[in-house]
Amino acid sequence: MNIQVLSETSVPAALFKDAMARVAGAVHIVTTDGPAGKAGFTATAVCSVTADPPTLLVCVNETSSVARVLTANKVLAINTVGSEFNELAMLMGGKTSLEDRFASARWTPGSQGAPLLDGAMVNFDCVTHDSHVCGTHRVMFCRVVAVRLGEVALDPGLYFNRRFRHMAPV
Amino acid sequence: MNIQVLSETSVPAALFKDAMARVAGAVHIVTTDGPAGKAGFTATAVCSVTADPPTLLVCVNETSSVARVLTANKVLAINTVGSEFNELAMLMGGKTSLEDRFASARWTPGSQGAPLLDGAMVNFDCVTHDSHVCGTHRVMFCRVVAVRLGEVALDPGLYFNRRFRHMAPV
Repeated sequence: MNIQVLSETSVPAALFKDAMARVAGAVHIVTTDGPAGKAGFTATAVCSVTADPPTLLVCVNETSSVARVLTANKVLAINTVGSEFNELAMLMGGKTSLEDRFASARWTPGSQGAPLLDGAMVNFDCVTHDSHVCGTHRVMFCRVVAVRLGEVALDPGLYFNRRFRHMAPV
Repeated sequence: MNIQVLSETSVPAALFKDAMARVAGAVHIVTTDGPAGKAGFTATAVCSVTADPPTLLVCVNETSSVARVLTANKVLAINTVGSEFNELAMLMGGKTSLEDRFASARWTPGSQGAPLLDGAMVNFDCVTHDSHVCGTHRVMFCRVVAVRLGEVALDPGLYFNRRFRHMAPV
C-alpha cells in the first residue's frame, strides 16, 4: 500500500456516501439477546462470505452501543425482510426505545437466543466467531448455525438512493 | 465460540445458498489490471465498510484465478451498474475469455490502472490494503482512492432469487 497515493487522492466521506447511495441494498433487521442485553437495528451492510462454512458478515460502527452488545453476546440473528417491514426497519434505524423496537413485531427465540423476526423472508441464526476492525467499523463474521426460511417476498425490502424502493414484478 | 453447538446445528451449503437467494443484491463488475494481468468478474458480495477512511469490501473465492490476480495487483475497481449492463454481468460471471469480457464495453483506466466501466452508476477506484480469509473465501478490504459518479440509473442492476430483476419506478 502506498500511503502517499492514498493521501493525494483521498475521497471525502460525503462523496463516498453519495457514491454508496447508488448501491441498492436488501433490508435486514439485526437482533441479539444475551448477557449484555437485547438490541436490534436495521442494516444494509450485510454480505455473504462463504457457504463453507456458512458465513455472513455485518458491519457495525465500533462506537455504537449495539457493537458492544453484539461483541459481548456473541450471538445474533440477521432477519432479511420484505417491504411490509419498512416501518419496522425505520423504527429499528431511529431513536426508538428498545422496548418499542421489539413491541411492534413478533419474534421467536433462535437456537442461541437471538430474536428471529416472524414473517421475515429468511432468518439467519448466527454466532459471531471472528471480527476485523476497519476504520470506524467492526466487520463481524457470523457463522450461520440455523436457518429459517420464510416466503420469498414478491416485494423484498430494498434501499436505494436514500429511500425505500420496490422491486418490479417479474 | 462453542464448536459443539456449531457442529450440532451445522447448516448444509445448499440450504445456506437457498437462504442467500432471498437476499437481493446490487450488481457490480469488479476489475483489476497490473503486473499479474487483467481480470474482471461479476460480484454481488460487495459491502460498504466505513466512510472513514472510505472502504468497501469484496469477497472472492480463494481458489479462483481472480483472487490470485487481485492479491498480486493490489488495485481494483468496483463498478456498480444499471440493468443495461446485465448482459455484461452475465459475460463477466461465465466462462467467457478475458478478451471477450472486456471487448463488449468501454473502459477508462482508473488512477491505479484498474479499468473503470464507462456508463456505470458509480466507479469505486480502489487499492486493496488488507484482507481476511474466512473459510473458502478471502474478504478484500478496498480503500477507495477515487470515485467517478455516473447517472443514478432508473433501473439499477438487481439480483434476487437467482435471476436479474428490475426496480419499480418511484
